[in-house]
Amino acid sequence: MAKSKGRVTLPSESNFLSQTKELLERWGADAIRDSDGTKLSDDVKELDAKIYTTYFVARGHNDFAQKHMDECQQAFLMSSYTLATEATVKIEFLKDYFDQQVKADYDHDPKLWWEVYDRTENQLISTDAWYVDQCTDTVIVENCKPFHEYTVSFLAYLIWDPTQMYNHITNDWGDKPHEIPFDVRKQASREYVKDYLKQWLKDNPNTDVVRFTTFFYHFTLIFNNLAKEKFVDWCGYGASVSTEAILAFEEEYGYRLKAEDFVKNGYYNSTFCVPSKQYLDYIDFQQRFVKDRAKELVDLVHEAGKEAMMFLGDNWIGTEPYGKYFPQIGLDAVVGSVGDGATLRLISDIPGVKVHEGRFLPYFFPDTFYEGNDPTLEGIRNWLNARRAIMRKPVDRIGYGGYLSLAYKFPKFVDYIEKVCDEFRTIYDTIQGVTPYCGLKVAILNSWGALRSWHPYMVAHGLYCKQIYSYNGMLESLSGASVDVQFISFSDIMEHGIPSDIDVIINAGDAETAFSGGSVWDDSKLVSMVREWIYNGGGFVGIGEPAAYEKGGHFFQLADALGVDKELGFTLHTDKYFKDVVKSHFITEDIVDEFDFGEGMKNIYALSENTEIIVQSKDEVNLAAHSYGKGRCVYIAGLPYSQQNTRLLMRSMYYAANKEADFKKWYADNLFCEVHVYPSINKYAILNNTNEYQKTKVYDGEGNSVELTLEPGEISWKEISHE
Amino acid sequence: MAKSKGRVTLPSESNFLSQTKELLERWGADAIRDSDGTKLSDDVKELDAKIYTTYFVARGHNDFAQKHMDECQQAFLMSSYTLATEATVKIEFLKDYFDQQVKADYDHDPKLWWEVYDRTENQLISTDAWYVDQCTDTVIVENCKPFHEYTVSFLAYLIWDPTQMYNHITNDWGDKPHEIPFDVRKQASREYVKDYLKQWLKDNPNTDVVRFTTFFYHFTLIFNNLAKEKFVDWCGYGASVSTEAILAFEEEYGYRLKAEDFVKNGYYNSTFCVPSKQYLDYIDFQQRFVKDRAKELVDLVHEAGKEAMMFLGDNWIGTEPYGKYFPQIGLDAVVGSVGDGATLRLISDIPGVKVHEGRFLPYFFPDTFYEGNDPTLEGIRNWLNARRAIMRKPVDRIGYGGYLSLAYKFPKFVDYIEKVCDEFRTIYDTIQGVTPYCGLKVAILNSWGALRSWHPYMVAHGLYCKQIYSYNGMLESLSGASVDVQFISFSDIMEHGIPSDIDVIINAGDAETAFSGGSVWDDSKLVSMVREWIYNGGGFVGIGEPAAYEKGGHFFQLADALGVDKELGFTLHTDKYFKDVVKSHFITEDIVDEFDFGEGMKNIYALSENTEIIVQSKDEVNLAAHSYGKGRCVYIAGLPYSQQNTRLLMRSMYYAANKEADFKKWYADNLFCEVHVYPSINKYAILNNTNEYQKTKVYDGEGNSVELTLEPGEISWKEISHE
Repeated sequence: MAKSKGRVTLPSESNFLSQTKELLERWGADAIRDSDGTKLSDDVKELDAKIYTTYFVARGHNDFAQKHMDECQQAFLMSSYTLATEATVKIEFLKDYFDQQVKADYDHDPKLWWEVYDRTENQLISTDAWYVDQCTDTVIVENCKPFHEYTVSFLAYLIWDPTQMYNHITNDWGDKPHEIPFDVRKQASREYVKDYLKQWLKDNPNTDVVRFTTFFYHFTLIFNNLAKEKFVDWCGYGASVSTEAILAFEEEYGYRLKAEDFVKNGYYNSTFCVPSKQYLDYIDFQQRFVKDRAKELVDLVHEAGKEAMMFLGDNWIGTEPYGKYFPQIGLDAVVGSVGDGATLRLISDIPGVKVHEGRFLPYFFPDTFYEGNDPTLEGIRNWLNARRAIMRKPVDRIGYGGYLSLAYKFPKFVDYIEKVCDEFRTIYDTIQGVTPYCGLKVAILNSWGALRSWHPYMVAHGLYCKQIYSYNGMLESLSGASVDVQFISFSDIMEHGIPSDIDVIINAGDAETAFSGGSVWDDSKLVSMVREWIYNGGGFVGIGEPAAYEKGGHFFQLADALGVDKELGFTLHTDKYFKDVVKSHFITEDIVDEFDFGEGMKNIYALSENTEIIVQSKDEVNLAAHSYGKGRCVYIAGLPYSQQNTRLLMRSMYYAANKEADFKKWYADNLFCEVHVYPSINKYAILNNTNEYQKTKVYDGEGNSVELTLEPGEISWKEISHE
Repeated sequence: MAKSKGRVTLPSESNFLSQTKELLERWGADAIRDSDGTKLSDDVKELDAKIYTTYFVARGHNDFAQKHMDECQQAFLMSSYTLATEATVKIEFLKDYFDQQVKADYDHDPKLWWEVYDRTENQLISTDAWYVDQCTDTVIVENCKPFHEYTVSFLAYLIWDPTQMYNHITNDWGDKPHEIPFDVRKQASREYVKDYLKQWLKDNPNTDVVRFTTFFYHFTLIFNNLAKEKFVDWCGYGASVSTEAILAFEEEYGYRLKAEDFVKNGYYNSTFCVPSKQYLDYIDFQQRFVKDRAKELVDLVHEAGKEAMMFLGDNWIGTEPYGKYFPQIGLDAVVGSVGDGATLRLISDIPGVKVHEGRFLPYFFPDTFYEGNDPTLEGIRNWLNARRAIMRKPVDRIGYGGYLSLAYKFPKFVDYIEKVCDEFRTIYDTIQGVTPYCGLKVAILNSWGALRSWHPYMVAHGLYCKQIYSYNGMLESLSGASVDVQFISFSDIMEHGIPSDIDVIINAGDAETAFSGGSVWDDSKLVSMVREWIYNGGGFVGIGEPAAYEKGGHFFQLADALGVDKELGFTLHTDKYFKDVVKSHFITEDIVDEFDFGEGMKNIYALSENTEIIVQSKDEVNLAAHSYGKGRCVYIAGLPYSQQNTRLLMRSMYYAANKEADFKKWYADNLFCEVHVYPSINKYAILNNTNEYQKTKVYDGEGNSVELTLEPGEISWKEISHE
C-alpha cells in the first residue's frame, strides 16, 4: 500500500535541508512553514511543498512606525484605585503600567477623552475638578470626598506589540528593537500596509501561502510595572480603540463611547461580563472596519496568485471567525493552535473558508523537548483529545510549529507523529464532507452565542483557570460527542425564538456572568419562553448557577423547571425535606469512578419530592433531574472534563431530551470508548480514547452488540450491516 | 464548710416529694418549677422553696377562644408558586398548609387584604383579575401570562398554638384539645386575659413566681400538609398580624402595610433578609403594643405580691429583651434555655430585669435519660461551654427542666449537677457585680444591631444550620472571651457615628444577608465612614463576605482596607500574583490542630503584596491581614466554634486593634485554657475548658508566667499579686 501523503504542514529552519526532506517524506507533509524565531532557507523553499510565510501587518515595520508615533495603537486604561484621605488626591495613573508598553496620549486633550471616577459612588467627576500634570503623569483631583477611591481612565498609546513583547521578555532578546504596533484606521498606516504588502508579494515569489499573523488589533494584553502580565483577555477589544474610531462610531451610531465603556471599573468588558449594548455595538462596528481593511490585503494576495491564511490569535480582534462579517474577508484558510477537542472544533467549524488547519502540540520548543523528557506523552494526549473532535468535524490539515531540529532528536516522537499523520489522513479521506450521526441537537445558551463558539469561557487561550474548568469540561466533552452542537445567545432566542430542532439547551456558568446570563433573566419574556419550551417537551441542562437572578423568591429563575434552587440565606427558615437520593438512575449507569463536579456549587437544594436527587454530598445536591410538563431538566453542579463526565453529560442530555431509548443505538458500554457513525457511507468507527487496552461492548445501531478489545489509542473502522 | 445554697431551680412533679426534698438539699435549690407535662402536687408546693408556676396568656383557654374564633391570631401566608400554562390559573392556596393549624380568613374581604402576584415579573395583579372560590379554597386568576408563576398571599387564621401543636404531634397526644391562640389586640381577648389572670392569682396562693410562657404572639412556626414544620423563624413577627394591627399601624404611620410586606415572596422577612423600613416600623409598632399589654399583666402579678418571670421563647414576639421598650414591661426575671455560651449571654446580658435565669441542658426527657446513655456527658459539655460565658457575665440563677424522676435514676448525673450547682454559686458569689478585665471593646456590626444581641444568625433556637455555623462560631467564641462585646447596627453608626471606644468591628455573614449588609454598602457614606475609622487606627475583622456589594469594581466595598476581595468572574482577566503565604504570624502562633474555616469562602484573593496571607488552600485565601493607614484588617473565611478558633479570633482581634503587646498580659498559652481577671477584687481564674487534664503556662498581668496543671474542667482561682 502506497504511503499516504498530504494535509500536513512541517515547520523547518535554516541549514536543515536533508532532515526536512526526510520528515517531509515520513510524515507525508506537503507544506513547510517558518515559525517564531525560524526562517526558511532558500534550499528548503525549493522543496516539493507549499511554502507558508508568516506575515505581520501592523508590527515589525519600525522604520515606518517611528515616523508616525501618533498612529500608534491605543487603549483606554484605568489607573489603580487611589484613596483620598483628604480633599485633594493625586493619582499616578501610569504607576502600575509597563512604561515600555504604555505611555499617556497627551496629543488628544485629556479633558475631552479621559475620565475621573469616584469609585465609591461610581460617579463620573466633572472635568473642572481635576487636571493633569504631564511632567509626572499625575492627575490631581480636587474637592474630593475623603475616604472615597478615585480612578483615572486615560487614553494611552501602546508602543510595543504584546506578542513580540512577550517573546522578547520571555526569551531575553536584549536590545532587539521593540516592534511598534500602528493603527490602520489612521491614514498613513492604512496606505502603508497596502503598499508594503504589494512590494512584499513581489519580493517573495517562493511563498505560496501568506500566513497573516494576524491583522490589525491584538487581543488585550497589558503588562505591569514589573514587566509581567497585568491583564489579558483573548477576546478583548480594548487595544482597538482610537479617537478616530470613537468619532467614526459617533458619526454612525449617534452616540459617543466614553472611556468607561471600555474600562468598566476595571472589568474591561471581560468576556465574563454580560455585554453592554455599547460594547456589542462597538464590536460590530470594528468587525466591519477590520473586515474591509483585511479584505483589501487578502485581495492583494490573491491578485499575486497566492493564498491567504489567517492565524487564529494574536492580532485577531475584529476577525473572529464566527463573527457575521468574517466570510466576506475572503480568506482561503485559518490556522490555529489545537490544545484539545474544543479548540479543534473552534477551528474546524469555522464557516466561510476552504482550509482549516490545526497546529498540534507539543510545540517544538526546549520547554518540552529536553533530555529526559518524553514529548511523545504530550503528543498522545493531544492527539487522542483532538481526534474525538476530528471524528465530528475534521480540520483539513494538521501541522506543527517550532524547531524541527529539536523534534528530530526524539525518534520515538517522530515515529508517533508519522503514525498520527497517517491516521489523520485515513480519517479525513473517509469522513470529510460526510455528516456524522448525531443523536441530539444541543444548544449552548449564553450572552455571546455563536460569536464565541467553542471558546465561551476563555480568558487566555488554552490556560487553566480555577473558575472556568468546571464549565469548560462541558465544551470539551461535547467537542467529540455524537451530538450536533449550536451556540445561541439570549438575544437570538428573544428575537427569533428557540429553534424548533433543538433537543437540549445547556446553560452553564456562575451567577451574574455572561454565561449564566445575569440580568437577562430579569426579563419575564425570556423566562417564560424557556419554561414553555421545556414544558412542551424540551430538555434543559443547567450547570453551576443556571438562569441565576434573585427575584420573586427564586435565585434560579428556572427553579420550578430545574427542581432545584440555591439557598442564599433568605429561605433558611423554610424546611428542606427533600434529601432522598434515588437508588439508581439512567444518567449514572456507566459510572466507574468517584464523581467529580470540579469546583461544585454550594447550597443547592431540591424543591420538592418530584426532584430526582442523583448525587448529593455535604447536604448539597450535585446532580439532579426533574420533569416539567412533557420536558425534563438536569442540574449538574459542575463538569470538569473527563471521560466519565463526558458520559455523564451525554446521558444527562439524552435523559433531558426524553430519548433514553435512543441512547444505546450506537454506543460503547465502556466509557473510555466512543462510537462515531457515518450512515451515508455505511461506516462506523470505535475509538479507544485512552493509551491503554480497552474492552467494550458495542451496539451497532440495529440493537446487536458485540464485545471487542481495542489497542491503546486504536480506532477501529466497521461497515454498517443492515439486516 | 457549710454547704452553699440558693440560685438553683429544680423541676418537680406529682408524687415525688421525698426525692424532691433530697435533691433540693443536695443541689442547694431554692425554687421549684413545673414543666411541660408535669404539675406540682400540693406537698411539693409547701417545701421551703419558691414556687414557679407556668402561665399561658393567650392559649390554653379554649372555653373562651371557641366563643371568639374571630379573635384568633392571624398571619399572611403565601401559596405555593403556581405555574400558569394557559390564560387561567387556579391556585389552591391552602394545599401546602396544615389544615389543623391554618384556615383562610373569609371574615375580611380578600379583595381588601389578599394579594395575587405574578412572581415571574414580581408584580402585583389587580384585584379585578382574580376571585376566590371559598368552597374549594382556591383563587382563580384570569388573563394570566402563560408560563409565569403566580402566588396568592392570603390572610389566615391560626387555630392551634404552635408550641402545643409541636408537643401534641411529637408526643402523640391524640384527642387532647388543640389550644387555640387568641389575639389581645381584639377587644374580648384583651379583657379576658386580664380578668382571667386576676382570678388565677387569687386561686394560686402558693405560687411565688408567675412564669409567663410567654405573652401574646408566637414566633413564626407554620406546619405543612403533612403535619411537619414548613417554616420557622425564632424572631419572626409573621404571627402577630391582624387587620386591627394593620389599621392601627396605618393610623399612626400614615401608610398601609400590604400582605407582601409580610410575605416577601416567601422570604417572610427572614432574619437573614436586610430588613425593610416597613418591617422595622412594624416591629417597633408591635413592640410598643406588646409592652403596654404585657405591663398590664405584670402589674397585676405585682399587685398580687408575686414576681413576674418571662420565658425567653415561644410567644415572645414583641418582648425581645434587647428591644427598646422591654424594660418598661417591668418584669422581675427572664428565664431561657442555655445551649452554649452565646445563649447564656443572650440571657445574662438582658437589661432591665433583676433576675436572669438559665435553664441548662440536658432537659430531663427520655431522649437523653435512657438506659445505656450517660446524660452526664451532655451535662459536662453544656456546663463547660456556658461557664466561659458565666465568667464574663453570670446569670443570677441556673435551673433544669423536665421529669425529675428520670434524672434521679442517674446517680452519676445527680452527683455532677451537685458539683455544678456549687461551682456556679462560688463563681456567682465571687464575681457578681464585678467588672471583668476586658482587653478590647468589640462591636459586631450588622443590620439588626442590639435587637439581635447574641442571636443574630438564629433561625430556630439552638439548631445547627449549614449556612450559619461558620458565623455563629464567632459569637460562641466571644461569649466567653475577655473582651467587651457590643452589637451595633448599620443605622446606629449612620446616625451616631462609630462609638469612640470601639477597638474592633466585626462584620460577618454571607453576601446580601442582613449580616453582611447587602445594599447598605451601596451607601458611600457608610463605606467612607468605616474606611476612615480603620485608617485612623481602628481594627476590622471580616468573616465570610464582609461588606459585600458589587459596585465600582469591588465586591467587598472595603476591599482596599481588607486587602482581599472575592473573584466573581469579572476580573478573571487580571493576573493575581499575590499568593505567598507568610512564614509565621501572630494570629496563628497558638495553633495546635488543622485549620477549620467551616463552609469557608470560595475565590478569595489578595489584592497586593501588602496583604499578609496567613492561610491559603485550593488557591483561595482563608485567613489574611492587611494594614490600612494606622489601622488593620483581618479576613477570615469562616469561623465554626472550637477552642482553637476562639484563640484564632482573639488573636485576630488583638492584631487588628494593633494591641499584640497586650495580648499576653493575662493569658494561658494552652488554648484549651482561659484566664478571666477581676481587677477590682484582686482575683483571677484559670479555666480548663475541657474534660481532660491540661498543662498550661499562665501570665499574671505583670509579665510573670507560671506553669500549672489543671484537672478536667477545673477552675483555679488566684489572687493577683502586685509587685
